[in-house]
Amino acid sequence: MTTIDLNADMGEGFGPYHWGADEILLEYVSSANIACGFHAGDPHTMRIAVESCLNRNVAIGAHPGLPDRLGFGRREIAVTPEEASDFVIYQVGALQAFVQATGGTLRHVKLHGALYHMAAKDERLSSSIVSAIQRLNPELMLYGPPGSQLQYAASAKGVRYVAEGFADRAYLPDGSLVERHMPGAVIEQPEMAARQAITLTDEGRFQSLCLHGDTPKAAEHAKHIAQRLKAAGISIQSP
Amino acid sequence: MTTIDLNADMGEGFGPYHWGADEILLEYVSSANIACGFHAGDPHTMRIAVESCLNRNVAIGAHPGLPDRLGFGRREIAVTPEEASDFVIYQVGALQAFVQATGGTLRHVKLHGALYHMAAKDERLSSSIVSAIQRLNPELMLYGPPGSQLQYAASAKGVRYVAEGFADRAYLPDGSLVERHMPGAVIEQPEMAARQAITLTDEGRFQSLCLHGDTPKAAEHAKHIAQRLKAAGISIQSP
Amino acid sequence: MTTIDLNADMGEGFGPYHWGADEILLEYVSSANIACGFHAGDPHTMRIAVESCLNRNVAIGAHPGLPDRLGFGRREIAVTPEEASDFVIYQVGALQAFVQATGGTLRHVKLHGALYHMAAKDERLSSSIVSAIQRLNPELMLYGPPGSQLQYAASAKGVRYVAEGFADRAYLPDGSLVERHMPGAVIEQPEMAARQAITLTDEGRFQSLCLHGDTPKAAEHAKHIAQRLKAAGISIQSP
Amino acid sequence: MTTIDLNADMGEGFGPYHWGADEILLEYVSSANIACGFHAGDPHTMRIAVESCLNRNVAIGAHPGLPDRLGFGRREIAVTPEEASDFVIYQVGALQAFVQATGGTLRHVKLHGALYHMAAKDERLSSSIVSAIQRLNPELMLYGPPGSQLQYAASAKGVRYVAEGFADRAYLPDGSLVERHMPGAVIEQPEMAARQAITLTDEGRFQSLCLHGDTPKAAEHAKHIAQRLKAAGISIQSP
Repeated sequence: MTTIDLNADMGEGFGPYHWGADEILLEYVSSANIACGFHAGDPHTMRIAVESCLNRNVAIGAHPGLPDRLGFGRREIAVTPEEASDFVIYQVGALQAFVQATGGTLRHVKLHGALYHMAAKDERLSSSIVSAIQRLNPELMLYGPPGSQLQYAASAKGVRYVAEGFADRAYLPDGSLVERHMPGAVIEQPEMAARQAITLTDEGRFQSLCLHGDTPKAAEHAKHIAQRLKAAGISIQSP
Repeated sequence: MTTIDLNADMGEGFGPYHWGADEILLEYVSSANIACGFHAGDPHTMRIAVESCLNRNVAIGAHPGLPDRLGFGRREIAVTPEEASDFVIYQVGALQAFVQATGGTLRHVKLHGALYHMAAKDERLSSSIVSAIQRLNPELMLYGPPGSQLQYAASAKGVRYVAEGFADRAYLPDGSLVERHMPGAVIEQPEMAARQAITLTDEGRFQSLCLHGDTPKAAEHAKHIAQRLKAAGISIQSP
Repeated sequence: MTTIDLNADMGEGFGPYHWGADEILLEYVSSANIACGFHAGDPHTMRIAVESCLNRNVAIGAHPGLPDRLGFGRREIAVTPEEASDFVIYQVGALQAFVQATGGTLRHVKLHGALYHMAAKDERLSSSIVSAIQRLNPELMLYGPPGSQLQYAASAKGVRYVAEGFADRAYLPDGSLVERHMPGAVIEQPEMAARQAITLTDEGRFQSLCLHGDTPKAAEHAKHIAQRLKAAGISIQSP
Repeated sequence: MTTIDLNADMGEGFGPYHWGADEILLEYVSSANIACGFHAGDPHTMRIAVESCLNRNVAIGAHPGLPDRLGFGRREIAVTPEEASDFVIYQVGALQAFVQATGGTLRHVKLHGALYHMAAKDERLSSSIVSAIQRLNPELMLYGPPGSQLQYAASAKGVRYVAEGFADRAYLPDGSLVERHMPGAVIEQPEMAARQAITLTDEGRFQSLCLHGDTPKAAEHAKHIAQRLKAAGISIQSP
């Protein structure tokens, strides 16, 4: 039976502020990437998200970002490879503690926003970050884009890599994403996204598909994609 | 042979700012409490402090504080027991990650500043914090003042407690500290502090003595106290 | 003709996070208290809120709070009178700059959350804050609860004081608020709140009524109260 | 009589942390650029720095930076022109308030670190920032490097520009700075720096020379440069 992992970012509120639709998404995803307090999230938010994942049997990952709450971790900051890996260790450790204290197991790391994009194309950043994750816990998997510097670094250092794709983003024939500002880059219709999810799964290029949780129709999309995958005989499960 | 632990707070710089005399103190202490990024410290500072401790064979503890960098964690903030324990788990986890990634073992937790004082006298705060530490890692020891709510909570929950005293603070006959604003509360002469260190050790009421690292003469005091303890046949080692 | 000021807190989002219903409330209030970046708000949020107020001809005030974004400025922090007044000057100055750069005039200051409550009952805090406001700009009015230390300090220093009441909070016969945790403390029905708004206006004890913007029915309440006040022949205008 | 302005950055401590040698530098400079709480500084630090400048009759400027305390504002962050100008207005306003409340006048703005360098070479950033300063207060002067986008924007918008040079940095024949990592880029000997200060003043290309305050010999350098300028018949005064 074909299987695919569905992942989503979670716990991205902060203090008094809510974000996304965590509780609904948890019904459909098999893995969650929980914000760790730098770009979003805080100790309380992290604990609640960890508890929700354990209650729903959703695999837990850390979602570390750049220290830029105001910019939600989406702005590039000129950090050194050493700064970046120190940021990652700090955040992954903080989340790991909530998982340990709740009796669960931290399964993976997925970088957030600008840090994800910077590392994907920068060999030294990727190398430093992947080494740090490996030293912290060699069992941790790393989620990221296929064919990126992150994947090369993970492969070189023996860290298991989970290539992720997007059901709701258009791909070029060479397998790269259509840039976000281009027409048609974002797939708005749930049925089209669901069909792409099935196609991407069948092609076997990705081990996980990322569902966005911060759009108005996030919950509806997630539900539709999950239902159509199951109807197509594809099992949704974490790696 | 009589033994005593000497502990000091470390890694309390931040970004471009230096603090204390970590490298010198590491020659004399057997345990270090490393700041975790809330009241002081940052990912880089934490990693460097952890590496220095491992190089010197100094036992590593986490030193979590209130989220108040501006006030150095010294101002009371009206937090709930749940907020306090979430803060502690977050910070202890972050430091634990640097220790794990460097191949060491986190040994203890010592609260910082206002959080230390608030928890020492508040049963609900102490209970929440000690339970969280116990859930995170039952091997962790807790440092704190003797006869406090922290000690009662640790005892009730089976967390090993290390009662700490101060070589450079005057004590009343009932064993409590002379309040800091009273004349004679702080012992300024190294020889007097050294003698008190020996007396406190001999009395057996404390398992650890805290050395202050942020005064102009911190290094000189630490050296003198350590030398006099050794000359008195007392071995300095972590619990 | 009887007049009353209606005020509401605004610009309390942060970075990616939204808060409240600013645009709707601006249709009904005559004064806005704009968050200044400590408990909520950020430079972008502040500029947008200032521009919205000027477009709607709503009087602009600064709404400074404690430096505790995580706790939304609602937790007491043990600050000195000097720290508190420095916090207020900083924040009022930052907001004043956006008002100046947009061609408007800053009219008043209203403290937020824990700072509001702490100052209302602490003579030294109030005195330090009111003096600082007076030195910064003697034309600024101060909003606050009637009969408080804030009012006494304003009176003593010649700062014009605007006593504010709450349409949706129950009052005891002695004029004090029913504590929030008591049954009936919060008035949930718009018509009851509107009637209380008229009564409070007629009594003349308050120069302004505060409308809450962060409840699900905030917009509905504001509209109803404003309509009923006008129907009762009361003019809504800033002091 | 030839005159030159000497400026230095000030108030760059934070909370418990000290930085630089403000009190000594104030004896020699005619202008100070005071940090505004984003890259360094805090409300207390700002007020103290403002009071010190007024006591010494040193002209006061705002020194706004990027919101990156951990990196001391030295790391580039990918901000939009609008974000940058909002950051500047916020910070200049906060400092202006302390100056107003102390009875002084804010005279100029000098960007800090990465923001200084980014704006110097980016037309859109410079244009947005200079426009914002001009809207806030058209009397404010702007300090910056000669021949930069900042200077062009100031010239286009009618903001008075003060071109600054460095006594302790080597210049190429074309007037540009030798890059910091090149041998000889930094002039270490006080006498060489003093001679360059005289030469740069005589050439007339700069209206101000910046003295660094965060090096071990900052105070010694400042004293020597000031004495040699005076001995050469050059008067040190703010523009």
